[in-house]
Amino acid sequence: KHILIVPGDGIGQEVTEVGKAVLVKIAEKFGHEFTYDEALMGHVAIEATGNPLPDETLEKMRNSDAILFGAVGHPKYDNDPTAKVRPEQGLLKMRKELGLYANLRPIKLFDELLGASSIRPEILKGSDILFFRELTGDIYFGEKGRKNDNNTAYDIAEYSRYEVERIARKAFEAARTRGKRLCSVDKANVLETSRLWREVIQALAPEYPDITVEHQFVDAAAMMLIKDPKRFDVVVTANLFGDILTDEASQIAGSMGMLASASVGDSTGVYEPIHGSAHDITGKGVANPLASVLSAALLLDISFGLKEESEAIISAVDKLLKDGFRTRDIADATTPADKVLNTQQAG
Amino acid sequence: KHILIVPGDGIGQEVTEVGKAVLVKIAEKFGHEFTYDEALMGHVAIEATGNPLPDETLEKMRNSDAILFGAVGHPKYDNDPTAKVRPEQGLLKMRKELGLYANLRPIKLFDELLGASSIRPEILKGSDILFFRELTGDIYFGEKGRKNDNNTAYDIAEYSRYEVERIARKAFEAARTRGKRLCSVDKANVLETSRLWREVIQALAPEYPDITVEHQFVDAAAMMLIKDPKRFDVVVTANLFGDILTDEASQIAGSMGMLASASVGDSTGVYEPIHGSAHDITGKGVANPLASVLSAALLLDISFGLKEESEAIISAVDKLLKDGFRTRDIADATTPADKVLNTQQAG
Ligand SMILES: CC(C)[C@H](C(=O)O)[C@@H](O)C(=O)O
Ligand SMILES: CC(C)[C@H](C(=O)O)[C@@H](O)C(=O)O
Repeated sequence: KHILIVPGDGIGQEVTEVGKAVLVKIAEKFGHEFTYDEALMGHVAIEATGNPLPDETLEKMRNSDAILFGAVGHPKYDNDPTAKVRPEQGLLKMRKELGLYANLRPIKLFDELLGASSIRPEILKGSDILFFRELTGDIYFGEKGRKNDNNTAYDIAEYSRYEVERIARKAFEAARTRGKRLCSVDKANVLETSRLWREVIQALAPEYPDITVEHQFVDAAAMMLIKDPKRFDVVVTANLFGDILTDEASQIAGSMGMLASASVGDSTGVYEPIHGSAHDITGKGVANPLASVLSAALLLDISFGLKEESEAIISAVDKLLKDGFRTRDIADATTPADKVLNTQQAG
Repeated sequence: KHILIVPGDGIGQEVTEVGKAVLVKIAEKFGHEFTYDEALMGHVAIEATGNPLPDETLEKMRNSDAILFGAVGHPKYDNDPTAKVRPEQGLLKMRKELGLYANLRPIKLFDELLGASSIRPEILKGSDILFFRELTGDIYFGEKGRKNDNNTAYDIAEYSRYEVERIARKAFEAARTRGKRLCSVDKANVLETSRLWREVIQALAPEYPDITVEHQFVDAAAMMLIKDPKRFDVVVTANLFGDILTDEASQIAGSMGMLASASVGDSTGVYEPIHGSAHDITGKGVANPLASVLSAALLLDISFGLKEESEAIISAVDKLLKDGFRTRDIADATTPADKVLNTQQAG
């Protein structure tokens, strides 16, 4: 099995190093032979080649069995909305070129972190949500531009039945292996793409009679996620709504620094933290590497089918937390100073 | 001063009755002469006339000094994404026809309700956010439709500089009268409309040197609202992002049932609860009317400039809560049964 490591920008570099170390350790312990290669993406790739996703990187990606990814982005571009070349273009191109249409984001709170969230423990306890975010369509990939002498901007959101159906099927199937509840989130009272989305879900539902299907408007879902997170089991939604709701839902898990995601589709899979490049804390050694470590666990489970190995990583994270170790983002007033780790120690 | 009452659908009917009663009482107490009329909108208007916003209603709206509005919607349409006539069309048409481009949503927690939220009291205490949601542009009002034999749906998001500038100025000016911090929320790393949005905010900022301006991506903002709500003072954002974020932020105030909004622009203003028609609890007398009561307070303040009268209503709500009275949505285990009110009593 061949794994490509793509650390990207900012803390992506720090946390992916830890994620890779965990893969190396697992291979050693369970007697697997993984081979590794590394490639540039994002701001570091722009600096080196002028291109956020160089052809060489894309080629290496296509030849991999799975990719452990960090994060891309740089504040320089955020403050310059007119920049023509941007790190995120590489990310979006990767998703499209590799056909990564399904983004899985499991949101589960480690019991030890009940106190790290801004939500009350009694509301949180027992929450376990699996998001399916569509990742290669919607307003992310439609035509966009300016008109009227640069005085009007537009973005086109688009979905085909086929695109909705393939992500919906993945979500229905996942619901079967879990709580058997599927919540589809849209804005069908306003958007035509959402009305198509809802039509497709409704048309598929009879094929999955064991699954209870619910539809929620995105505004109501954004509210309900905080009010009563246990209400959700599997959630399926469009690209933009998924972007917003999964970041919001990170608060259920106590910190963004704990959440991994898998992007899968037609071929190789990309495994990455849901957090960004966080340049404000880059190089300080305080980044929480657990999202990358848990990304490695997802990689072993989903792309390689290695359940036991994946479980071993999750248990190790659980033990680390039970032993009281914390990076700064998940530490609180009761954490003794000698248990507040920097990134390398946490790995 | 002439006030039009538009109760709309579901609990809109129940709560608006209470909101109107409060206006009548205030006029009596402070010696004002308000005249009232009533009009149909939403599902009830479709049933009566086939049109969710009959011409007669629109005409009455244009002739009013302010409108106290309830809610529109009906589950019948939600489950039928192909319905051609929908209650929400009336709402959107009203916003467009009356030029209601600025939707103000104050999110403030009454201290008495610190326990009603799913967010920890120590995170919440002192939160006070004023949202400016743009209300007549974005993906709500662009062209939308189907193509490829009905197999692809699309929605066009659009913003002009002029549209962004007029809402941004309102937000900058409001920040001046408050904490002097403005957070503009967009998705400028992906959307062209957001890049234009950010350009306009950046171009205006030098005119308001006393205001500290911050830009956040919508996914980060959705997370930060829960993690650290006190970080926000005035927030300005596009129509769709505002829809999602303000519903989410309702959890900061303990319940949707406590939040009022003002939609203003070129002429008359519309004042309404941010909650919907809630057909599941309609007719049971359990709806919380305080959002409509607080809408009446906003109406007096913003459209009529009657600050003292507006404050009198807010104090009365505060006293009601201090006296321990609660509707079901804001009651908890410690609320004695005889203090759990139904809608009429709460009014
Ligand atoms: C960086 C950005 C383009 C990206 C997205 O919006 O998809 C990120 O927020 C994510 O969720 O992976
Ligand atoms: C009913 C719906 C069309 C409406 C909107 O999305 O604007 C509502 O959610 C609101 O916030 O007023």
